Amino acid sequence: MYGSSLSTLGEFGLIDLIRTRFPQPSPPELGIGDDAALLVPAPGRQLAVSTDLLAEGVHFDRSCGPDRLLGRKSLAVNLSDLAAMGAVPRWFFLSLALPAGFPLAGIEAILDGLAEQATDHGCLLAGGDTCGSKSGLVISVTIMGEQVPELLVTRSGARPGDDIWVSGTLGDAALGLTILMQNHTGLADGSAAEFVVSRHLDPTPRCRLGQRLAESGLISAMIDISDGLLADLGHVCRQSGCGAEVWLKELPRSPAFEELAGVFPDYPWHLAAAGGEDYELCFTAAPEQRAAIAGVGKNTGIPLTVVGKVTRSFGRVQAIMPDGSLFQPPASGYTHF
Amino acid sequence: MYGSSLSTLGEFGLIDLIRTRFPQPSPPELGIGDDAALLVPAPGRQLAVSTDLLAEGVHFDRSCGPDRLLGRKSLAVNLSDLAAMGAVPRWFFLSLALPAGFPLAGIEAILDGLAEQATDHGCLLAGGDTCGSKSGLVISVTIMGEQVPELLVTRSGARPGDDIWVSGTLGDAALGLTILMQNHTGLADGSAAEFVVSRHLDPTPRCRLGQRLAESGLISAMIDISDGLLADLGHVCRQSGCGAEVWLKELPRSPAFEELAGVFPDYPWHLAAAGGEDYELCFTAAPEQRAAIAGVGKNTGIPLTVVGKVTRSFGRVQAIMPDGSLFQPPASGYTHF
Repeated sequence: MYGSSLSTLGEFGLIDLIRTRFPQPSPPELGIGDDAALLVPAPGRQLAVSTDLLAEGVHFDRSCGPDRLLGRKSLAVNLSDLAAMGAVPRWFFLSLALPAGFPLAGIEAILDGLAEQATDHGCLLAGGDTCGSKSGLVISVTIMGEQVPELLVTRSGARPGDDIWVSGTLGDAALGLTILMQNHTGLADGSAAEFVVSRHLDPTPRCRLGQRLAESGLISAMIDISDGLLADLGHVCRQSGCGAEVWLKELPRSPAFEELAGVFPDYPWHLAAAGGEDYELCFTAAPEQRAAIAGVGKNTGIPLTVVGKVTRSFGRVQAIMPDGSLFQPPASGYTHF
Repeated sequence: MYGSSLSTLGEFGLIDLIRTRFPQPSPPELGIGDDAALLVPAPGRQLAVSTDLLAEGVHFDRSCGPDRLLGRKSLAVNLSDLAAMGAVPRWFFLSLALPAGFPLAGIEAILDGLAEQATDHGCLLAGGDTCGSKSGLVISVTIMGEQVPELLVTRSGARPGDDIWVSGTLGDAALGLTILMQNHTGLADGSAAEFVVSRHLDPTPRCRLGQRLAESGLISAMIDISDGLLADLGHVCRQSGCGAEVWLKELPRSPAFEELAGVFPDYPWHLAAAGGEDYELCFTAAPEQRAAIAGVGKNTGIPLTVVGKVTRSFGRVQAIMPDGSLFQPPASGYTHF
């Protein structure tokens, strides 16, 4: 219908293509096609809004993974922010800056990935913007969710003595990125390397878990792990006016991580403690809630693990090695500038 | 405090810098600093949401104008979308992708321009994202406004026989861009050239006018003129299931436009009829509302002019030259791909 390149499609053809791929909000709401989208927030709910911009050469390299997964991930990182507040995803907005000659098949694959992720999380595409780019691909997503105000969870409620919990396993995504950067290609299906690479390329936002934890009223603070556990825990500590102690030997690691750890001269604690992009949840709760929280983990099928303790040392995040010594983290998180 | 470059400032230093420059939403709302912003929509209002992404080398050239005006414009284009719905601006989100070594003074100037525009329109910065860019500067803004549902104006309500109105004057911004692209520098203060260039670099979003028109209940459809009058009127016609006839001799032109028109071999009708980025409003209304609408123009101090008539010819936008012949527009609007 459109030929194979963006220039035959044109801007309005691209908008039509997007519109056909996503179910639209229905009246009295209004999606793509006017100056602004019109949305109806549910009465009595607060809106939670987050935005992330992904730039080629900074956040992703198209040669490292399929475009479909890039589409999935660009919504996943935003869904993960809503998960960390316990909010229910409702709508998202998509802005694409596309280099001239960008292959139409690539755009379609990105849209397919976005549509899969949106459907999985009940989130409607309500608008956006498309334009050219003189350089690489830019994907900017703004997501909006809702929750009753009493149930929303922020970064600022942690109290000294609280347990520090994490969901799932840590370090897989950072290990997967390490493998991708060494140009490993053709990873065997079902291999440990394939697993950790997929954790980097196709992270699972913990939306249902975040909502269940928020609704349970059991937890005091929450954040998603995008910059690495220690860096993100640092944000919680600063906002809550406290500190944290993390026991590295307790960090949950996947069988694949354990299998691959042997290729490092030393055990790669830094990947589990400070590696980014796992998009697991880190939350705090009083110790007396331990059994009830374990129950939430069981009901959602996602392992939840206590990995440390909130302390009184303002802003200080200490990580303890298995031998009792202090872990010296490498520069944590990605440095943008 | 920070040195003069982005790399000494760092990502969190930049976020702090942004936070100090913009008043933040106050409890129970939550702005910058958590996984998502938390906003409280007014009861009974619909949300209007729009997003625009501006990319260096596509939408702007930093050598053509001061960074402060770039900041003003990046919010103005979004405010203009809300103006066209009659919505009242409330919050915006700002994503910046910045090349390494981007001058700190440039960032501060962009933020100053954004803050001026936000203050003028009572719009709070509630969140955003900052990251590096391997190429040019990217500014992505998502804006949210509110209005009671009955007062919101869409593109789809125009009816055959309605008058077609525009606000302000047309063609200035496109003429200003023409002058900028010819590398005119050092334009004399108060000159006609300086005026039209400023209309391109620093457009005025017609928010108050859009709200007054919406509240008046007098109008049937509205759009902002970003792609050129004829192209934008085409959107209204397609959404409303009608056509349009535009009389070029009625198009309101500024004294500066008239003064500069003489440098073209022919009178530059194409700039007034099809030039982009004036960010004026185009709206439709039944002829019996003419006097009342003129009153709204008088009250807001913005000239409003009838420039044509809605017709029954679905999707057909005809522009009539002063001699009665049909205007043949050049390819209208900017082609992105």
